[in-house]
Amino acid sequence: MEFSAFRKKWTPQIDRFLADKLATEIADHDFGQIMAYSVMAGGKRLRPLLFLAVLETLGKEIDESALRTACGIELIHTYSLIHDDLPAMDNDDYRRGKLTSHKKWGEAQAILAGDALLPLGIEWIAKGSQNVEMTAVMAQAIGPNGMAGGQYLDIDATNNAAVKNDDNYLNRMEWLKTGCLILASVEMGAIYGQADAQAKPNLLDFAHAFGRAYQIYDDLVDVVESSEEAGKATHKDEAEGKNNTLTSLGVEASRKALQQLIDQAKADLTDFSDPVLAGFLEIYQKVL
Amino acid sequence: MEFSAFRKKWTPQIDRFLADKLATEIADHDFGQIMAYSVMAGGKRLRPLLFLAVLETLGKEIDESALRTACGIELIHTYSLIHDDLPAMDNDDYRRGKLTSHKKWGEAQAILAGDALLPLGIEWIAKGSQNVEMTAVMAQAIGPNGMAGGQYLDIDATNNAAVKNDDNYLNRMEWLKTGCLILASVEMGAIYGQADAQAKPNLLDFAHAFGRAYQIYDDLVDVVESSEEAGKATHKDEAEGKNNTLTSLGVEASRKALQQLIDQAKADLTDFSDPVLAGFLEIYQKVL
Repeated sequence: MEFSAFRKKWTPQIDRFLADKLATEIADHDFGQIMAYSVMAGGKRLRPLLFLAVLETLGKEIDESALRTACGIELIHTYSLIHDDLPAMDNDDYRRGKLTSHKKWGEAQAILAGDALLPLGIEWIAKGSQNVEMTAVMAQAIGPNGMAGGQYLDIDATNNAAVKNDDNYLNRMEWLKTGCLILASVEMGAIYGQADAQAKPNLLDFAHAFGRAYQIYDDLVDVVESSEEAGKATHKDEAEGKNNTLTSLGVEASRKALQQLIDQAKADLTDFSDPVLAGFLEIYQKVL
Repeated sequence: MEFSAFRKKWTPQIDRFLADKLATEIADHDFGQIMAYSVMAGGKRLRPLLFLAVLETLGKEIDESALRTACGIELIHTYSLIHDDLPAMDNDDYRRGKLTSHKKWGEAQAILAGDALLPLGIEWIAKGSQNVEMTAVMAQAIGPNGMAGGQYLDIDATNNAAVKNDDNYLNRMEWLKTGCLILASVEMGAIYGQADAQAKPNLLDFAHAFGRAYQIYDDLVDVVESSEEAGKATHKDEAEGKNNTLTSLGVEASRKALQQLIDQAKADLTDFSDPVLAGFLEIYQKVL
């Protein structure tokens, strides 16, 4: 299936699943509402779509269990956004055009909403997939050697002249912060879809290139888009002394690096007849 | 095995496993140190010991995989303490006689140490147990319908006259905050140790009584012990307007409730010849 048709088909089903289950499976109504506020704030659902697209690519049927697993990934992604925005972290007031969780509900409530979304995401993955390897892949991707470790390096890098042009450090930080969760979404799809020994490394190589590209894309959005288009404060990385690949390479070299990663990701997909995964690369066109 | 011998045998092995693996399995040395600071701050290791004691009770050998699973529970318990102590939550400066994580390392670092310990704990449980049901049991116990949900009710209850004498609310809050994780430790042991259809409900009944008793015990420590004995600020629940079973019932009625739960927990264990689980109830003697 083409990416645009795939997205059109599955995004509303992801949204509905998230809204329904958060409303019916959380005992405390008020707390469920706080969690749902951030989950339903209008994300692109990139990571669950990516997981489902791997299943589609491998010819695996997408049923309710697959959908629960996919939505578990989105819960975990949302937790990471809520905690990133906290006053002690990036201290952001807006996200996707809406007040951030702590501005809307209070800081303790926002910390706890994140603390609840993370294990709920794990629970959905465990129960949806019934697969302990997939659950471990996700847990590893967001722990100290994954996303949380990347956030730690990010704190350390902010206003730190020593790492400003240390491309190894910045690469590693950005990979852990963003790439790891994208790779995990694809790897979980490869396990769930029972990719064979030839398909699996190709999918993982694609995920590596796509994930690395995504961070460069995200940094480019910060300088290229207006804050209205992006739905959050832009041009703030430089103002806040954030160091990343873009502040190190500059806009034009970053675009070049992004294009190279796109070409590489496309090459990793040549064995697959279904065009859906290649279509994800179209997202990056708007900053090229 | 008697509880005191069991504790003497396994506590040092839990401590060593935690210290070794945190030092060698976390890529970023500084971040690993921040996480280890709280994990190695001298807890009683009650929850991992409880998990291991269930295996002992069921005649299941305790190997390295069981130890990794047990220690995963302790990582998750430590995450919960770090986040509870945060300025936006209980705002505590000391824990177990040492500075709390945010006082020692900074608030962002403490949030991230917790955010890393939670999934690392899940990863250890998944990889140690190779059992997706156990992993789901843990995830559920600490999510919105478990520990995180209890913390949310706790925020809501503080200085809230409406719930001050609402025993149902307080019971539910305390069960979610503390009981759920204790129950999960026992339930995971029952699954790992392949408890049969007769043993499992007895173990779960024991865990319900033991977990409920633990919260009452913890509240009693707050009023009965000096802060030096407890290693943290005491007498602060009342000063801060905290509502719990103890502030609702008073000290003597709380002691009575605790004794009843101990008797009930003992009765649940009559089928088991190994005395180790009954020995856990000795902990409560110091507040009776």
